[in-house]
Amino acid sequence: MDATPLTTPEEAWRIAKSLNYRHIGGTVVAVVQDVETGEVLMVGHMDPVAVVLTLTTGLAHYYSTSRKRIWLKGETSGHYQIVKEFRTDCDGDAVILKVVQIGAACHTGARSCFSSPASFKIRLNRDA
Amino acid sequence: MDATPLTTPEEAWRIAKSLNYRHIGGTVVAVVQDVETGEVLMVGHMDPVAVVLTLTTGLAHYYSTSRKRIWLKGETSGHYQIVKEFRTDCDGDAVILKVVQIGAACHTGARSCFSSPASFKIRLNRDA
Repeated sequence: MDATPLTTPEEAWRIAKSLNYRHIGGTVVAVVQDVETGEVLMVGHMDPVAVVLTLTTGLAHYYSTSRKRIWLKGETSGHYQIVKEFRTDCDGDAVILKVVQIGAACHTGARSCFSSPASFKIRLNRDA
Repeated sequence: MDATPLTTPEEAWRIAKSLNYRHIGGTVVAVVQDVETGEVLMVGHMDPVAVVLTLTTGLAHYYSTSRKRIWLKGETSGHYQIVKEFRTDCDGDAVILKVVQIGAACHTGARSCFSSPASFKIRLNRDA
């Protein structure tokens, strides 16, 4: 992988300022994917400071829209996310983090919030 | 794939009511993945009616938080999304749609909003 070193604070701030924080609490939506499998592990929100902290430390930080504060994923659980790729969408209001997930992404202990005991799935077959 | 037929309106409404529409405009976040590759194609928002229309027709519908109306993906472009799987997260405020994408997901003509000319990516290597 043609990895670059972690971004400088100045570069991180330039990137953070280029995004469109139009979502709840002044945030962008962050979709978190396992870097190896592409499985979607969780959806979070990031304000500009969470973007800067993520890009400069390489560890995923989010903005909690309920607790109204920045949090480092894993700060209490130890379930850190090591960010390998940060990608923005066409209108700058959503990002993808491709991560190495330490432990579980979900607070329920499930690897993914979308495979938790509280989640469900339904398969559709329009051609059936 | 152990596909089920499309959901009835009653079942779709039961599912729609179980979600937590805490995001912008009274919506859940919808992450759209290519059903074959797992590539994230776009992020949209769904209100309860968009959820019901998606589950009963098998075609992705969203709620536009800017235009403040429901839209059928592909209604003008022909770039429909045939939904093969609908999955909810642990707290019911985000869903994954696994789709067969007809044409391009992004309005720029790119297959994914995260690989558009306006998006960018940065690789990080914490261990470098």
